[in-house]
Amino acid sequence: MIRRLAIVGVGLLGGSAAKAARAEGLAREIVGIGRDAGRLGPPLREGVLDRATTELEDGVRDADFVLLAAPVLASEGLLARVWRAAPEGAVVTDVGSTKRGIVRAAERLAAERRAVAFCGSHPMAGSERSGYGVARADLFRGATVIVTPTDRTEPRAVKAVSELWEALGARVRALDPESHDRVVAAISHLPHAVAYALVDAVARLEPEALEFAARGFLDTTRIAAADPDVWTEIFLANRDAVLASLQRFRGALDELERAIASGAPAALRATLARARDAREGLR
Amino acid sequence: MIRRLAIVGVGLLGGSAAKAARAEGLAREIVGIGRDAGRLGPPLREGVLDRATTELEDGVRDADFVLLAAPVLASEGLLARVWRAAPEGAVVTDVGSTKRGIVRAAERLAAERRAVAFCGSHPMAGSERSGYGVARADLFRGATVIVTPTDRTEPRAVKAVSELWEALGARVRALDPESHDRVVAAISHLPHAVAYALVDAVARLEPEALEFAARGFLDTTRIAAADPDVWTEIFLANRDAVLASLQRFRGALDELERAIASGAPAALRATLARARDAREGLR
Repeated sequence: MIRRLAIVGVGLLGGSAAKAARAEGLAREIVGIGRDAGRLGPPLREGVLDRATTELEDGVRDADFVLLAAPVLASEGLLARVWRAAPEGAVVTDVGSTKRGIVRAAERLAAERRAVAFCGSHPMAGSERSGYGVARADLFRGATVIVTPTDRTEPRAVKAVSELWEALGARVRALDPESHDRVVAAISHLPHAVAYALVDAVARLEPEALEFAARGFLDTTRIAAADPDVWTEIFLANRDAVLASLQRFRGALDELERAIASGAPAALRATLARARDAREGLR
Repeated sequence: MIRRLAIVGVGLLGGSAAKAARAEGLAREIVGIGRDAGRLGPPLREGVLDRATTELEDGVRDADFVLLAAPVLASEGLLARVWRAAPEGAVVTDVGSTKRGIVRAAERLAAERRAVAFCGSHPMAGSERSGYGVARADLFRGATVIVTPTDRTEPRAVKAVSELWEALGARVRALDPESHDRVVAAISHLPHAVAYALVDAVARLEPEALEFAARGFLDTTRIAAADPDVWTEIFLANRDAVLASLQRFRGALDELERAIASGAPAALRATLARARDAREGLR
C-alpha cells in the first residue's frame, strides 16, 4: 500500500493512473501536480485526487511513490527537482515513451543521493487524444508496461514499480533502456512517422482524394491525429533509433516499389505475402 | 427490378451484393458464377443464389444485369466473354479497384456490339479478409461507390448501375476513370503499400519488437493482412498512379525525416501539426 502517491502531470496517462489507483485502493492519498491549477480542478472535484498543487516540491515532499507523467522531455527536466524534494526511501518512475535519457539522468542523480530510487516504465497504452478528459480507470488493464531496469537500478524500485502497474491491471515486461528505445522506435515511433507522412502527402498533393477516404485510410492514419507537441518530443528524444527505423522502412518500401515498377507479379506477390504472413501472426 | 442478376465471382464483394440484392428484393433471380463449384455451395444452400454455375456463358446468357466481381485483372479478362454472351440490352458493371483498364476494354467492345452497355463502379467498402464467408448484406450500406462513366458511356448504364448501388444502401459518386485511379492510388493503394512495407521492415529487422505491438501498430498495419493475390493485381493494374503516389509519399517522409534529423523542434512541430490538422478534418 502506497501512503502518498504523487502524480506529476494529470493528463491521459497520469489521470488514468490516478483513477485506477483510486478504484483499486492502492494509495491512501493521491496528490496531483500540474502547471495549470484550473486543469487540476476536475480530478479534484471527482475525488480522483485528494490534493492538487502547482508546486512540484510541495507535492512530492511526503510522497513515497512519485509517478512522472509529463511529456517525455519535461519529465526528464523535472526529475532532478523531484529527486531533491522527495523523502528518504521514495520510489520514482515515469511513463515516457523513450527511456535512455531519463534512466541516464536518474543514474547520475542516484550517484548524488541514494535515498531515492528510480525505475523507468513505459505503459504501451494511450490514445491519439490527450488530457484528463479522456483518462479512464481501465486504460492499463490488459496493456503491456515495459519497465527498464539496468544493473544499477535498485531492486526495491523494480519491485515497487512493477507491482504498481500489475495492480493497475497491466502485464509487466522488462527490457534494458537501449532495447526498449529500439523496440518502440520500430513499433510505435516509426508507425507514427509513417502515418503523419501519409496524411501529409495526400492532403497536400491530392486533397480532393481525402473525401473518398474509407476505413483503410482512416485506420492507417488514425495515429496522425496525435498531439504534435508530444510527438515532437518523442521523435527528438529517440532521434537516432527513429532515424534508424526510418532507414529500414525506406529499404522495405524501395523493395516493394521496385517489385511494382518491374511489373513482374511473382516477386511482388512474394513481397506482399511475406508482409501479410507477418501481420497475420499478430493479434 | 432486375429480372436476372448474374454475379461473376461470389466472394466478399460479389457475395455481399448477392445477399443485399436478395434482402432488398432487387432481382427476381440471382445467378452466381464461379470457377469452383464447391465454393458456390454455401450461397446456393443459403438461398442467396437461385442458381450457380461454373460456365460463364451459361450464367450470363439471360441476364439483364451482370456484376463482375472477380479480381480486377480477371474481370478485365472476362469482360469480352460476358459481352458476347449477354443478351440484347444487358447492363454490365464491375467492382474493380482500378478503372482505366476495364473502361477502355468496354469501349472497344461497345464499338463491336452496342447492344450491351457498361459503366464501371468501385464500391469503397471491403475488408482485409476475403471470400464468401465474410460477405454480408450490409457491406455497402453507407459506403461510397464511385461510378466511372465517360462521354462514351450509355446513359442507361450509368442510371441502372447507380440505381443498383443506391438500392444496396450506398452513396454514389461519379469520377472519370483517370481521376478515379489517381484518387484511389492516394487513399487506398498508397496506404496498402505503406502498411505492407511497414510490417515487412519491422518483421525482418526487429522481429522481437512485434510482440510489443500495441493498438497504434495494429491499426496502422491492419490492411497489410489483405490478400497478396488481390493486391498484386491492383498494384500492377494501377502501376503508374501507384508509383506517382509513392513518389509523393517519399517526399513527405523525407521532409519529416529531415525535421527529425535537424533536431529543431519548431520545424518538426509545424510538419506534424499540418498532418494532424488534415487528419482531424476527416471522420
